[in-house]
Amino acid sequence: MAPAIQPADVRAAAERIRPLARRTPVLTSAAFDSEAGLRVYFKCENLQSIGAFKIRGAANLILSLPDVSHGVIAYSSGNHAQATALAARYVRASATIVMPQDAPRSKMEATRSHGAHIITYDRFTQNREQIAAEIQAGTGAILVPPYDHPMIMAGQGTAALELLEEVGSLDALITPVGGGGLLSGCATIAKDLQPSIRVFGAEPEGANDTFLSLGAGRRITVQADTIADGLRSPQPGELTFPIIQGLVEQIALVSDDEIRAAVKFLLLHLKILVEPSGAVPAAALLFRKLPAGIQSIGVVLSGGNVDFEELARY
Amino acid sequence: MAPAIQPADVRAAAERIRPLARRTPVLTSAAFDSEAGLRVYFKCENLQSIGAFKIRGAANLILSLPDVSHGVIAYSSGNHAQATALAARYVRASATIVMPQDAPRSKMEATRSHGAHIITYDRFTQNREQIAAEIQAGTGAILVPPYDHPMIMAGQGTAALELLEEVGSLDALITPVGGGGLLSGCATIAKDLQPSIRVFGAEPEGANDTFLSLGAGRRITVQADTIADGLRSPQPGELTFPIIQGLVEQIALVSDDEIRAAVKFLLLHLKILVEPSGAVPAAALLFRKLPAGIQSIGVVLSGGNVDFEELARY
Repeated sequence: MAPAIQPADVRAAAERIRPLARRTPVLTSAAFDSEAGLRVYFKCENLQSIGAFKIRGAANLILSLPDVSHGVIAYSSGNHAQATALAARYVRASATIVMPQDAPRSKMEATRSHGAHIITYDRFTQNREQIAAEIQAGTGAILVPPYDHPMIMAGQGTAALELLEEVGSLDALITPVGGGGLLSGCATIAKDLQPSIRVFGAEPEGANDTFLSLGAGRRITVQADTIADGLRSPQPGELTFPIIQGLVEQIALVSDDEIRAAVKFLLLHLKILVEPSGAVPAAALLFRKLPAGIQSIGVVLSGGNVDFEELARY
Repeated sequence: MAPAIQPADVRAAAERIRPLARRTPVLTSAAFDSEAGLRVYFKCENLQSIGAFKIRGAANLILSLPDVSHGVIAYSSGNHAQATALAARYVRASATIVMPQDAPRSKMEATRSHGAHIITYDRFTQNREQIAAEIQAGTGAILVPPYDHPMIMAGQGTAALELLEEVGSLDALITPVGGGGLLSGCATIAKDLQPSIRVFGAEPEGANDTFLSLGAGRRITVQADTIADGLRSPQPGELTFPIIQGLVEQIALVSDDEIRAAVKFLLLHLKILVEPSGAVPAAALLFRKLPAGIQSIGVVLSGGNVDFEELARY
């Protein structure tokens, strides 16, 4: 089966999303390099317009829709909700976001501030996909899935496109893995630009579904338990997984304590706030989870949306 | 009397410091703009190589020295210490830094990590300038003053040069004021590039020496009491003050609570860590201390070196 996306799709996405996704800076840190033992280029998607890379995929899908008169709908407790709301407002489409009723207030308010209509559900007794499907059936709204869609995957890949355009040749690239939208998109464009680049994913030990799936050769479902709330999707996507199988060398695993240490290191030494999910690849480098022989690596710091109370607990 | 520096000095500095000072990113934030009621461009010197703009001035002075064989010396408890140490190492000069014995461990260690020799003193009974002068007399080391030197002032001005080159025409510019090195350098180049730009400084209420000095028409000394530890210099410099008098419209004053609120806002909404001294102009904007009629403004976020324990107290 042909991969769900091609490098040209990522390039087309880069043009399409320009009005909504900013070109985020690439930072380096002598302190981090010295700790990790290699030269690291951080693509700072925590400094992205909504504080996370998710606007890239959501904007790519929504800006490509020929008709948004019936609105769009998404289910997410986090960054994808804000991304969908913001992109929908840009095209003057109504957005409905299905969120668990115990989602952080701050994320609900940020989503509402972009003009979205929020529907809450009880995540212990109700199924969000079913709720979304019912609303879709009733309204004709278009679903914006969190990762398993070619336009979402191509959009997320633009983070790697910008990074490699800016820094040039690298030995390797690493991104966090939840459902695999970011990793599959980034791997697709990275291998096209630099065929010899080694591509890695990074997962929390408590949400190692892609790690296990690569080992098994098929999609494995896990019960996620990790502080990296953006990476709790139970299994890789149907469309993302074959691309990851084809292009990704290995998934590095890190513990929640290693993630916390990475968040703290990035704050104190790079002076940037990265959410636990976004700091997973940095943790993999700080704790030297990658194979030897890599001297330079690009890292996608995927987001920075942390509650202040949560941060104070670190 | 002619001003201590000219715009050409800032332009020459920009060339000279290139190996040591990175071109920091300029960030914007819809949330900040909406809160402050104007369009703000943040020059992120907290993302500078040593976590603060001070490397610009120290590098400009040290890289211009014809002979550094007797080493350099500086007195500072903070960012200027690290800046001097790093620039000295680059030219293979020995660096001696005179620091108060109760300076934060983290800053002492950062300074030592750049290879500097640290001499501590008791800031209640000893005079650091005198200690530095004695060492200078004994060794022939060259003093790198924290602000009141044309090469330091010209170096700091490169922050505004980069900012205005990147964002183009602005209604106004604002920087923090300690001894006035940053403000005098930035005002000099800003008024040259855009003669109609309005230039402001921002000071803590508890270290309002430049505010008082502008009112009095002469340099006033105050006993500083503020959390903004980088802005505690007791009076504006002999060289910096006349430039500030000539080019700066007004000094905005903010309380320590307003500074804390700004640090928190920048962390949560821009995802960047800014130290209290660096957040003073942002506080002035958030709490609307500037005169009306300004629609766009550039802000120098001057540094990001905060202890983790201090941050946790916010």
